[in-house]
Amino acid sequence: MSLTSAHLNTQIVLASRPTGAVTPDNFALREEPIPELTDGQVLVRHHYLSLDPYMRGRMNDGKNYAAPQAINAVMIGGTVGEIVATRHAKYAVGDSVVGMGGWQQFSVVDANQPGAVRKVDTQHVPLSAYLGTVGMPGVTAWYGLLKICEPKPGQTVVVTAASGAVGSTVGQLAKHHGARAVGIAGGPEKCAYVVNELGFDACIDYKAHADAAGLYRELKAATPDGVDCLFENVGGRVMDAVLSRMNAFGRVAVCGMISGYNGEPIPMTNPRLILTERLRIEGFIVSEHMEVWPQALHELGEGVATGRIKYRETVADGITHAPEAFIGLLNGRNFGKQLVKLI
Amino acid sequence: MSLTSAHLNTQIVLASRPTGAVTPDNFALREEPIPELTDGQVLVRHHYLSLDPYMRGRMNDGKNYAAPQAINAVMIGGTVGEIVATRHAKYAVGDSVVGMGGWQQFSVVDANQPGAVRKVDTQHVPLSAYLGTVGMPGVTAWYGLLKICEPKPGQTVVVTAASGAVGSTVGQLAKHHGARAVGIAGGPEKCAYVVNELGFDACIDYKAHADAAGLYRELKAATPDGVDCLFENVGGRVMDAVLSRMNAFGRVAVCGMISGYNGEPIPMTNPRLILTERLRIEGFIVSEHMEVWPQALHELGEGVATGRIKYRETVADGITHAPEAFIGLLNGRNFGKQLVKLI
Repeated sequence: MSLTSAHLNTQIVLASRPTGAVTPDNFALREEPIPELTDGQVLVRHHYLSLDPYMRGRMNDGKNYAAPQAINAVMIGGTVGEIVATRHAKYAVGDSVVGMGGWQQFSVVDANQPGAVRKVDTQHVPLSAYLGTVGMPGVTAWYGLLKICEPKPGQTVVVTAASGAVGSTVGQLAKHHGARAVGIAGGPEKCAYVVNELGFDACIDYKAHADAAGLYRELKAATPDGVDCLFENVGGRVMDAVLSRMNAFGRVAVCGMISGYNGEPIPMTNPRLILTERLRIEGFIVSEHMEVWPQALHELGEGVATGRIKYRETVADGITHAPEAFIGLLNGRNFGKQLVKLI
Repeated sequence: MSLTSAHLNTQIVLASRPTGAVTPDNFALREEPIPELTDGQVLVRHHYLSLDPYMRGRMNDGKNYAAPQAINAVMIGGTVGEIVATRHAKYAVGDSVVGMGGWQQFSVVDANQPGAVRKVDTQHVPLSAYLGTVGMPGVTAWYGLLKICEPKPGQTVVVTAASGAVGSTVGQLAKHHGARAVGIAGGPEKCAYVVNELGFDACIDYKAHADAAGLYRELKAATPDGVDCLFENVGGRVMDAVLSRMNAFGRVAVCGMISGYNGEPIPMTNPRLILTERLRIEGFIVSEHMEVWPQALHELGEGVATGRIKYRETVADGITHAPEAFIGLLNGRNFGKQLVKLI
């Protein structure tokens, strides 16, 4: 591909902050010319855009763990793609790279900035996997499970949003470390996948239980020895149910609370369990633990390359579909890692 | 004192389990003969009985961190006293000892059982302090603050039930380690004591704020740099308010949740803060960390002996008053460590 300044870069920007649920109106499409590169820069053409729950938090103006996404700025997001123009000696046209290019077709990146762009091997691992199991979601699973939960062989790990990019990896890693893996997911299809394809020991369809008692009963049957580790992506009533099954000295890695992203209150019903079971509950953000990324990515890459770690993707076609795909993700309509294919 | 089998031992037993708040009817007075000692045993005459919030949990039949107190058994409890008869070479009549003698005037103890009875120095530390600052409550404060919270100089520590046996020690240790100490207590008298006598930087009277907004405002003023450590003894709305002031990477040592002992629900309103602030919340029971007791007791004993660590006691007179003193403790009517003087 040859590029001239006549090329336009289609972008999606945050048009307005959501009040309650995200709507398509919160986004706007924009076309911008691609600027000329200066020394040290590369131009990346994005093949895939990653959609992740954390983006919802950035859309709010309130206190969060990261600065809010600015209005009229390109939506933040992980991307994989290829170098299509370069003014950096270490990057050649055609290199496959992963970065944080955002919701747009192209990004101009200062390649000298640490972590801004990273070359990846696509011989053994598909390019898109670097946005999922061999990327941020995979390292998130790895860190929360192995550094916070630290399950011992024979212990029971429960993970919510179990068929998602993070949850699917959590359960497979838990099995690999000799633990019992129990997933919680929405719908029989996702649960069947979690057990039959990913190899979890059990999966509970929370949508089948509108009442807390029913959810608890099925959870109890699936965790006869109690729960030693909860990897939490959702929060709310499902978390409450699992907490009531925790064993003494259980660990809870709080990775996400997607059930409260729209501002609904999501109280924890019985925090007294923290005391009576001597629980340790820890929130974490994987980007604050960069020291583990090399080891985690190595292990995850090996797992994917050898077929030991499986994953599934839901792929939206074209950048114009990114907003509706993102809204679908927030409502659990994706199945596995949600991507947008741009090329 | 010489003892014969004619001596009777006045005891208080658990007569029935509370349904809701504890009432005097839940206890019964009993007189039992003192059995003859066998080899290895000592007879302890209790001078003081310790009353502590954890006892409330033992009165329930439900799941707790310890086995429930049996009906018709002597109420569990820490005691200090003197050896009045001995069939163990290492203990002489007149020795001052601390143990878990329970709500009774005398206890027969197998002195070979590790931890059952421990001789204490009453030259530099008053006997009763071994039930408070230089005993279980003090070690509880020491462990939760120094092993879970680990405050750094300049950080802010908030402790609830700040004038109590645990809370008063937490704040003084926090100051000693260079942190800002903010107490939360019930009533202006307790708050004045916490600031003026114990040296906390500030104290908030939660009873002055029936509304969450008012409590939050005063807390915000008292913690201008946010909160790095919460040492939690109470739970409920006060805990909610402090959590909303936590800084990133804040630690919460959950020592007690006295607000929920009667079975009231005490939800945590916004557990999402665990994620957004990457909090670490840990419940603990000090008796499961015996490895720290020698060091902690040494430091606490030194603090009390030199006058650096201050404490206050509320003393009920005579074992028959133990139930009402205990009910008072559960309702915050004590001021500092609640004891029952038996002799």
